[in-house]
Amino acid sequence: MSTKRVGIIGAGQLGRMMALAGTPLDVDFVFFDEAKVSPSSRLGEVIHPSQDNALEAFLEKVDVVTYESENTDTDLVERICKSVPVYPGADSLRFSQHRLTEKNKFRELGIATAEFRKVTTKDELVDAANELGLPIVLKTTTMGYDGKGQAVVKVPADIDSAWETLKGNELIAEAFVNFSRELSVIAVRDTQGNTQVYPVAENDHSEGILRISRVPAKQLSAEKETQAKHYINMVLDSLNHVGVLTLELFDTENGLVANEMAPRVHNSGHWSMEGAYCSQFESHVRAICDMPLGSTKQRQSHAAMINIIGKHGDKASVLNTQNAFLHLYGKEERSNRKLGHINLVCDSEEQLETNIQSFTDFVNECG
Amino acid sequence: MSTKRVGIIGAGQLGRMMALAGTPLDVDFVFFDEAKVSPSSRLGEVIHPSQDNALEAFLEKVDVVTYESENTDTDLVERICKSVPVYPGADSLRFSQHRLTEKNKFRELGIATAEFRKVTTKDELVDAANELGLPIVLKTTTMGYDGKGQAVVKVPADIDSAWETLKGNELIAEAFVNFSRELSVIAVRDTQGNTQVYPVAENDHSEGILRISRVPAKQLSAEKETQAKHYINMVLDSLNHVGVLTLELFDTENGLVANEMAPRVHNSGHWSMEGAYCSQFESHVRAICDMPLGSTKQRQSHAAMINIIGKHGDKASVLNTQNAFLHLYGKEERSNRKLGHINLVCDSEEQLETNIQSFTDFVNECG
Repeated sequence: MSTKRVGIIGAGQLGRMMALAGTPLDVDFVFFDEAKVSPSSRLGEVIHPSQDNALEAFLEKVDVVTYESENTDTDLVERICKSVPVYPGADSLRFSQHRLTEKNKFRELGIATAEFRKVTTKDELVDAANELGLPIVLKTTTMGYDGKGQAVVKVPADIDSAWETLKGNELIAEAFVNFSRELSVIAVRDTQGNTQVYPVAENDHSEGILRISRVPAKQLSAEKETQAKHYINMVLDSLNHVGVLTLELFDTENGLVANEMAPRVHNSGHWSMEGAYCSQFESHVRAICDMPLGSTKQRQSHAAMINIIGKHGDKASVLNTQNAFLHLYGKEERSNRKLGHINLVCDSEEQLETNIQSFTDFVNECG
Repeated sequence: MSTKRVGIIGAGQLGRMMALAGTPLDVDFVFFDEAKVSPSSRLGEVIHPSQDNALEAFLEKVDVVTYESENTDTDLVERICKSVPVYPGADSLRFSQHRLTEKNKFRELGIATAEFRKVTTKDELVDAANELGLPIVLKTTTMGYDGKGQAVVKVPADIDSAWETLKGNELIAEAFVNFSRELSVIAVRDTQGNTQVYPVAENDHSEGILRISRVPAKQLSAEKETQAKHYINMVLDSLNHVGVLTLELFDTENGLVANEMAPRVHNSGHWSMEGAYCSQFESHVRAICDMPLGSTKQRQSHAAMINIIGKHGDKASVLNTQNAFLHLYGKEERSNRKLGHINLVCDSEEQLETNIQSFTDFVNECG
């Protein structure tokens, strides 16, 4: 038996769930992270980057490296690539961590995006507002997530405060997209170029944080389903991506518009742990370890994921619900922190909505 | 968040699967086992009994203790009980690890068993053969598993060799039970006395080792299903059992006959990992950690488990089957060793049998 050893840069809940999914496939995990205690630290050795010869020690213990975040240091990944394969590769990382590069890539592939302008001065922000028309969203080109690093300019008077909030960063101004809902599509690609795509998820956000994902997205036309799958396959192939990739989409009257991508497993794919035959975590591990891909099909017709944010809430209510599955990350409570999630699997939309309704406290009172 | 800390005596595949099931419920695990590398050792700290003050160190790190094997030292459990709760309790352990005590308990509860005699001398063996009628099975009263510690006396001439093989042990002679198949029923009981029972499994053995479990058992009458559930509930309550318990049964024309019990999760319940809403491993963790019990219902109408024994076999064939799930234990290949299992979930018996057929190499060529 040749146990495969996977190194993960980061040791948060995504690493934890990858390790829980990969261990039954005889894959061992080593984490590269500064935290002494972390969601992943019960599931494998953690090497702290500040230790002497940390990187060398890490690389000696692994056959392949992956990462938890699109904000992973590209220089570090380039260095690792020289001795150990890193999946997804440096290209996937570079295009995901810079909003301008990312949007240009989408355009090049014929994937619809919001209109956008690069903004380096306040004058350019004024020009962008005039050319794109208000409202616009001003964003840092790097490091933004969960609504951080963003400011909305609704009226010309907002320009000053938006500029003051974000100046000093490289910025992008994006035209407002008139969308009915947010969707995401998640897919996996192996080293031979085979791909598998999960059903499109419909995502409810509040205060910039994902609260609920439903799968499949309600009443999504076959045309849009096909468009989502075409988009993500274009991105996967153009980046020669290996592993899981997520594409966030806006649903509009004129079709789907790409918002951003993440070269990793994604919060909107957590439903797949019990909802699909092969979860996004197992899919990622299989792909980067050169194993055959699993099936991304749903096991029951409907699934949902509800985030547990800020407070742990009434755990017993989840455990007492037959078709609910509790996934905690071993983290302390803190405002806006993702502490875990609840997965639901059902045979009808009606039952799913009834279940979601019974857990509204997790969505409304936590935060 | 109050992370619960479970100590497990033993660090094999059962501990590994308990830890994989309990981690998402924010339960941490510490193992008490001599092996330096074991199936559980990636999933929590392992304390070696030979270390100085090993037991004290172990007990300081846990809130509750459980064990992997019915052969766990009862003296050790009695000592631990004085400072930390042990579930299942010492009674469950005592009655499970001694075939005579166990059978007397079954009789006392009105549960059918084979006729039996205690055997301490060769003369008593001859008497037992006469009284019970041949064939009989001679077994050690303790430590037998997977067909070890047993000898069959088919004709009077077998008595000498059976006696030579097993003498020196405390022995029990059991009348032969004319059964059509072997079944097992698994249930869980919490500290308040609530119970949940899994559907009855049908088990195929070869060379004394479980090869395939199918759930539900084929064409089991409602009467026998009820009898199985009644039997196991009687045992659970009479022992004030907390956690999972397994009852092995013979299916006969005159109803179900109890063979033996195990105070633990069981190989014939591994199907529940993907086959039931709450797996036997999660059920056990919930019960011993004072959490509400989950549902033991099947998620799809049919499930099966195929053991991977001796050799790992064609892993890719499992990964390439949509409704098959691979569970490896991280063990080296060795004859007759349980290295992992394949779980199958299906919506029809026909599909299940087709799937099982496609994996016959795992049953026939491994060993």
